[in-house]
Amino acid sequence: MRQTRLFSKTIREAPKDEKCLNAQLLIRAGFIDKLAAGIYTFLPLGLRVLKKIEKIINEEMAAVGGERILMPGLIPKKNWEQTKRWKTFKELYKIKGESGQEYGLGSTHEEVVVPLLQKYVSSYKDLPCYVYQIQTKYRDEIRTKSGLLRDREFGMKDLYSFHKDEKDLDSYYEKIKKSYFKILKRIDLENKTYLTLASGGTFSKYSHEFQTITPAGEDIIYICENCNFAINKEIKGEYSKCPECRGKKFRQEKAIEVGNIFKLGTKYTKPFNFEFTDKDGSKKLVVMGCYGIGPARLMGTIIEIHHDEKGIIWPLSVAPFNVHLLPLGSKEEKIKENIRKTSEKIYRDLQKAKIEVLYDDREDKTPGEKFADADLLGIPIRIVVSEKTLQKNCVEIKKRNEKKIKLIKIKHLPQFLNF
Amino acid sequence: MRQTRLFSKTIREAPKDEKCLNAQLLIRAGFIDKLAAGIYTFLPLGLRVLKKIEKIINEEMAAVGGERILMPGLIPKKNWEQTKRWKTFKELYKIKGESGQEYGLGSTHEEVVVPLLQKYVSSYKDLPCYVYQIQTKYRDEIRTKSGLLRDREFGMKDLYSFHKDEKDLDSYYEKIKKSYFKILKRIDLENKTYLTLASGGTFSKYSHEFQTITPAGEDIIYICENCNFAINKEIKGEYSKCPECRGKKFRQEKAIEVGNIFKLGTKYTKPFNFEFTDKDGSKKLVVMGCYGIGPARLMGTIIEIHHDEKGIIWPLSVAPFNVHLLPLGSKEEKIKENIRKTSEKIYRDLQKAKIEVLYDDREDKTPGEKFADADLLGIPIRIVVSEKTLQKNCVEIKKRNEKKIKLIKIKHLPQFLNF
Repeated sequence: MRQTRLFSKTIREAPKDEKCLNAQLLIRAGFIDKLAAGIYTFLPLGLRVLKKIEKIINEEMAAVGGERILMPGLIPKKNWEQTKRWKTFKELYKIKGESGQEYGLGSTHEEVVVPLLQKYVSSYKDLPCYVYQIQTKYRDEIRTKSGLLRDREFGMKDLYSFHKDEKDLDSYYEKIKKSYFKILKRIDLENKTYLTLASGGTFSKYSHEFQTITPAGEDIIYICENCNFAINKEIKGEYSKCPECRGKKFRQEKAIEVGNIFKLGTKYTKPFNFEFTDKDGSKKLVVMGCYGIGPARLMGTIIEIHHDEKGIIWPLSVAPFNVHLLPLGSKEEKIKENIRKTSEKIYRDLQKAKIEVLYDDREDKTPGEKFADADLLGIPIRIVVSEKTLQKNCVEIKKRNEKKIKLIKIKHLPQFLNF
Repeated sequence: MRQTRLFSKTIREAPKDEKCLNAQLLIRAGFIDKLAAGIYTFLPLGLRVLKKIEKIINEEMAAVGGERILMPGLIPKKNWEQTKRWKTFKELYKIKGESGQEYGLGSTHEEVVVPLLQKYVSSYKDLPCYVYQIQTKYRDEIRTKSGLLRDREFGMKDLYSFHKDEKDLDSYYEKIKKSYFKILKRIDLENKTYLTLASGGTFSKYSHEFQTITPAGEDIIYICENCNFAINKEIKGEYSKCPECRGKKFRQEKAIEVGNIFKLGTKYTKPFNFEFTDKDGSKKLVVMGCYGIGPARLMGTIIEIHHDEKGIIWPLSVAPFNVHLLPLGSKEEKIKENIRKTSEKIYRDLQKAKIEVLYDDREDKTPGEKFADADLLGIPIRIVVSEKTLQKNCVEIKKRNEKKIKLIKIKHLPQFLNF
């Protein structure tokens, strides 16, 4: 894409009303825009990152048998009353329509997915079932000062599993733990993320969280020095020893919860009386699990982990573009034209090779401005075309996460970039 | 995909609370589920169709320079007050958070996109700009009896264009007319759709609608017998002659509005004082257009147009799968096993060739049930493997929109399906 075609522009100064790093960098780089506290617009570059994270999640959900659906945001009051959460889910936004209908704005979807599956599942033969969606959630959060880490409106992947018994749930629950770490590995968050025992909130007694260590985190976790299993501070009082390895030494860290998984058991199938007929003819309640991970929160967390003083450092898997192509100007018209022509050819060749490239074709920017913007945007590979490089029939290549600059012959570029 | 892996199942009887054809067929076929009036869940098959329509829209938006963004659903009251629509937009759902913040739930996004672009556009050099999103809209509709044709919650593609003058807007507006007909052609609605002059609602004085003729339509349009330009009944009193060709003969039709486009001019840039500096240094208000088309409404409309008494007939471009593979059973175990093995091989080969195939591997269904389900689901190409066809080393091929049945040698299948 040509950078002149992007309506968003970089901003030199960090916005005054944003204290946290991910929002500051994302806004300055033109990835997101703040509409109100905890409410953001995704601009073209930001949406590209978000869609890449979602694609990775979709692929990993397919690998664990997830069937993708899309549930509504407007959830009738009667569904929330069935589980008694109309009154107890305090972050629920409530809406009353002109003709008197009342809705809770989707903050989680057990109240929709349970009666939905109930229509199709009647026998043990129909189980297990795994359905998920990537959908916008709304929560009336009091604190919203962490950029994409805690919002009133946010995208969420929520997976719900339905089983004939606890044993089947247990085995799927373990599978999802692995699946989530696969997702985290693909977006370069795995090394800093700890499986953490936590309370279950309105959902269940206990849950497991995926906590990524960062000073921006709102949670405190205790990590077992022996086995790396962690416990959330909210329930640490219950444990003097690690529940996994009986170890006694913990270190305390600040962390952000990027995912969470719950064994719901029959907590939500019971209020809807969601039963199936087992092999022996007996009626039993369906046993359930739910599993959440937030694409936008992951995006914010990636930045908290992967940045330096100059800007963002995107992992290749989620970068808005793979290559940032920077032609530098020249005072001599002839040389400038040669730089332009060479850059246009490289741009076309990269596109033909299906390499996603952002082409900084802005002619009113100094080399310094272009370099600063490239560092801020954080695209993994920077290619510079300048008078100096062309004298040697070369371009200059620098990876965003390395200091080293390489001169590469233009004719060797395809080989170097593997196309 | 294996049909046994789908949690959704076909339903024999049309749901009693749905009067309209698209909802009846989509629910019976397991594409959508009704949560409440005007509020539907998209099940796996339905979501596949929706995503294909969205992909086509994305491609055509890219072709007219659209930059994709994603704006929030929670829009602060002050934005709506700026344009005076907090009180006048009667379908607006209003929300009040615990800490007192008030929001209008996104029913359209001029109130977000104008102040957003205002942050980035200051000079004539920054114009024109075209930004769009595909996002969930909420409207407090009184009547919701048309399935996917009019809902309280629905996906919408909304494109907003920003220009330095009316002339530039006019030329882009004509471009979008063509772009919309390209979209409609790709999803097989073009032949039945008429460009229709209509009132502008809260948006502008006049607008153009894309009206598709169907008895399920809620609108009445008058089509000029001479030039095919149409006028919506709501403003027909203003025209004794066709405004395009001065023709006097019209025929009346019922139609559904699948898209609409508006020349907003400065209606929404003025309240935000969204100005740019022109070449001559003068400050001018930005001129604006907006362009809507609804993926889910298109999906409903496709069904109203493309169906028969047995079920849906999907155009290939939006079908959930291209091929429906039906092995039929046999009483003889050996033959049954041969049918199963052959079908599994065809299934694998089709998948390898990147042909999307739904494989009806259900073993407890009669041939009659399988055929009825295949007709209801409406996948374009049906391949039957049975004792009879295998005797000739053949499969039976039938297109959903044709009566003719062909016997094709299995070894010729790749050639026949072009892989």
